[in-house]
Amino acid sequence: MKVELLSHTPSDDLLASLPASEIAESEFLSHLSFTFAIEGVSRACSHQLVRHRVASFSQQSQRYIQIKKLQDHIVTPPAVAEKAGDEFKSFIEEASGVYSRLVIEGVPKEDARFVLPNAIETSLLMTMDGRSLMYFLGLRLCNRAQWEIREMAVEILQQVREVEPVFYREAGPYCVQLGKCPEGRFSCGKMAKMKTKYCGD
Amino acid sequence: MKVELLSHTPSDDLLASLPASEIAESEFLSHLSFTFAIEGVSRACSHQLVRHRVASFSQQSQRYIQIKKLQDHIVTPPAVAEKAGDEFKSFIEEASGVYSRLVIEGVPKEDARFVLPNAIETSLLMTMDGRSLMYFLGLRLCNRAQWEIREMAVEILQQVREVEPVFYREAGPYCVQLGKCPEGRFSCGKMAKMKTKYCGD
Amino acid sequence: MKVELLSHTPSDDLLASLPASEIAESEFLSHLSFTFAIEGVSRACSHQLVRHRVASFSQQSQRYIQIKKLQDHIVTPPAVAEKAGDEFKSFIEEASGVYSRLVIEGVPKEDARFVLPNAIETSLLMTMDGRSLMYFLGLRLCNRAQWEIREMAVEILQQVREVEPVFYREAGPYCVQLGKCPEGRFSCGKMAKMKTKYCGD
Amino acid sequence: MKVELLSHTPSDDLLASLPASEIAESEFLSHLSFTFAIEGVSRACSHQLVRHRVASFSQQSQRYIQIKKLQDHIVTPPAVAEKAGDEFKSFIEEASGVYSRLVIEGVPKEDARFVLPNAIETSLLMTMDGRSLMYFLGLRLCNRAQWEIREMAVEILQQVREVEPVFYREAGPYCVQLGKCPEGRFSCGKMAKMKTKYCGD
Repeated sequence: MKVELLSHTPSDDLLASLPASEIAESEFLSHLSFTFAIEGVSRACSHQLVRHRVASFSQQSQRYIQIKKLQDHIVTPPAVAEKAGDEFKSFIEEASGVYSRLVIEGVPKEDARFVLPNAIETSLLMTMDGRSLMYFLGLRLCNRAQWEIREMAVEILQQVREVEPVFYREAGPYCVQLGKCPEGRFSCGKMAKMKTKYCGD
Repeated sequence: MKVELLSHTPSDDLLASLPASEIAESEFLSHLSFTFAIEGVSRACSHQLVRHRVASFSQQSQRYIQIKKLQDHIVTPPAVAEKAGDEFKSFIEEASGVYSRLVIEGVPKEDARFVLPNAIETSLLMTMDGRSLMYFLGLRLCNRAQWEIREMAVEILQQVREVEPVFYREAGPYCVQLGKCPEGRFSCGKMAKMKTKYCGD
Repeated sequence: MKVELLSHTPSDDLLASLPASEIAESEFLSHLSFTFAIEGVSRACSHQLVRHRVASFSQQSQRYIQIKKLQDHIVTPPAVAEKAGDEFKSFIEEASGVYSRLVIEGVPKEDARFVLPNAIETSLLMTMDGRSLMYFLGLRLCNRAQWEIREMAVEILQQVREVEPVFYREAGPYCVQLGKCPEGRFSCGKMAKMKTKYCGD
Repeated sequence: MKVELLSHTPSDDLLASLPASEIAESEFLSHLSFTFAIEGVSRACSHQLVRHRVASFSQQSQRYIQIKKLQDHIVTPPAVAEKAGDEFKSFIEEASGVYSRLVIEGVPKEDARFVLPNAIETSLLMTMDGRSLMYFLGLRLCNRAQWEIREMAVEILQQVREVEPVFYREAGPYCVQLGKCPEGRFSCGKMAKMKTKYCGD
C-alpha cells in the first residue's frame, strides 16, 4: 500500500481572514481539504472506502483496464499468507488464467471481470474535508476496522499530523475522540484499560 | 435480480401545501424520497452503485456472512454464459472450495473473502431523492452503462412511473433528458437516429 | 408557527425486507425520509435552518412575492413584545411603508426587499432523512438554541414520535443523546442536574 | 464587496499521480477545492448563497455581534441609490436606532436583530469543490441572477481563471456551458444573439 498526501489547504491560509476568526473549530475543519493518492489496496478495501459519502473518490475501473499479470497486483492478507499462502497463490493464478481465456474467447472485459477476486489491487484519488477526515479516522482507526483500511488510516493520520499538527493532535479512534467506545458488545475492550492518548499503533 | 420499491413519498402529499405551491419542478423532486430493496446483483454492480454520493445504501457485508453454497448466489453475465459457461461454472466451484477451506483452516472470514469473485451476489437497501433519481436514470439507462446496472435502472424506471407517472414520464437516458448525447466519442450513435421518446428498451 | 408532517417513510415498509434485516439502527435511520411544511417562521430562523446541508429546503423567495400587509406577516419575539412591543410595531409599519414606496417608485422588488427586516415571516418545505433529523434535534432542542428554531424542533419531535415511537423515543438534545454536554463554557448547566429522560420541555 | 481566494488545490499537484491519470475532467474537478473570504455582502445575498448544499459556509452570526454603526455596514442596491437614496438612508438610520434602543432596554441581541434589514452586511468563509464551482458559476453568472450574487460570481470567475486557466476557460453561465438557455420564458434573450464566448461581463 502507498498513501501520498498530494495536496491540502493549509489552515494558516484561512486563519488570518476576518470570517474565519470567529467560527468554532469543528466548523473551521470543514473548510480544509485533503487529497490523497492511494495505491495498492484491495477491492475489498476500496469497496468499503467508497461508501463514505462525504468524500470524493476516483477509482481505476475494471471495465476497460489491461490486466496482464494479475499475480503481480494482488493484496494478500497476513492471515492468509500465514495459514494458506500456497493455496491462495495458486488460486490467484487460476483466476488470472480464466480471466485471460474469457477475454481471448471474446467475452467483453466488463463481463470477464466477474471472475476477478476481491484481492486484486486498485488505486484511488481521495479528497475529504478536514471534519469528515476526523470522522473517518474515528471510524477506521478502531481496532474493529478491517486491517487494510486501518493501516491506511494510520498512514493518513501520520501525514496529516505532519502538515496540521495542531488540529489533528487529538485525532484518533472514536473511543479517544468521544471518551467512550461506541461499538457496544463488539468492543475490543481496550477502552476500559486505556489511560494514555492514542498514538497510532 | 429482484427490485422492489418498498416505500416512497407520494407527490400528492406535498403538492397541496403552501410552501410547495411556488417552487420549480426540479426543486420539488428533491423532496420526494424513494427506497428500493435490490437483491441478486453482482458485487461488480454494487461497487459502481455505491459511488452515487447522493443516495443512501446499506449492503450485506461479506465480513461476517455465512457463505454455504456460493454456486447458488452467483450472477452470470449473458456473454459469459454464451461463450464460456462451463469454464465459468467450474471456476466458481473452485473459488467456493478455496473460500471454505480457508475458513476451516482458521482464516478470519474478512480475510477469506479476498478470494471471492465479483460475480458473487449481494443485496442492498437504496434510498434516493427524486431529483438524484432523475440523474441516476440519465446515467444508468444509457446504452453505454454496464448491462446489469442498466437492467436495474429499467426496472426502477417502470416502478417509479407507476407511482409517479407525471414526474417520470420524461425520464430517460441523458440523451433524452438533454436532447444531446454527452458521451462524446463513446456515443452509442443512437441519438442521431432517435426520433421518438425513450421507452425503456 | 405551524409545523405539519406532510409525508414520511414508515419504518415498517422497510423493516420486512431482506437487506434491511442486518443493518445497524443509525444506518437504518438514513433510509427514512420526513417532509414538513413549516409556516410562519421569521427569516432570522429560516436563515439558520437552511444551513443544515443534509436537508432539502424550498423557501418562498422575497424576490418576486406580493407583500401587501407586512404587518400581518411578522414574527414578534416574546422578549421584544414584553419590553418594547409598541416601538417594534411602529418600526414594522415604517418598514412596510418604505418597502411599498420603493416599489411604487420603480425599484425592482428584489432590491426593495433590502429594507425588509428579519422579523418577516416565511414558509418552507423541509425534507430530512431520519439520521440527520436525529442530529438536527440534538442541536436544536438544546437550551442554547434560538427560541424559535427550538420551538420548531419541539413540535417536530412530537410529530415524529407519533409516527415512529420506537426510533425517536430516545431523541433529545445532544446532552441526552451523548450523555454529556458539548457546549463547553456555554453550557446551560442543566446536564449536571439532569436525572430523567428529556421529554420535550 | 471584497472577494479573496484564500487557498485552493493546485491541479498540478494532483495531475501527476497515477489514479488521476485516467479520470474524466468533470470527475477530476471534484477533487479541487477553493476557499474564499467574502466580505461586505448583504444578508439578502448570503441567504441565497448558503442554500448551495455542496459548499461549506461559515458566516458571522447576528446573535452575538456588536453592531455599533449599522449605517457603515450596509449594502445599497444601485436601483435604490438612484431612485430613493435619501429615503433608504434615513430608514437605515431609523432601524439602527431601534436596534440600539431594544438592546439598551434589555432585549437579547438574538431577538433585537429581528429589526435588522436584509441590507445589512455580513462576511463569509466559503469552500467549494471545483465541480460545484462550475455549477455555481453556471447558475449565478446568469443575467437573471440577483445583481449582487452575480457580481460575486464574476469576481470569483476572474480569480479562479488566474490560478486554473485551463479548467475554467470555458466556465460561464449555463447558456454557455450547455449551449442553450434553461430559463424558459424567463430567459434574458441573450442566448439567441450570442455568437462569442462569455467573457465575464
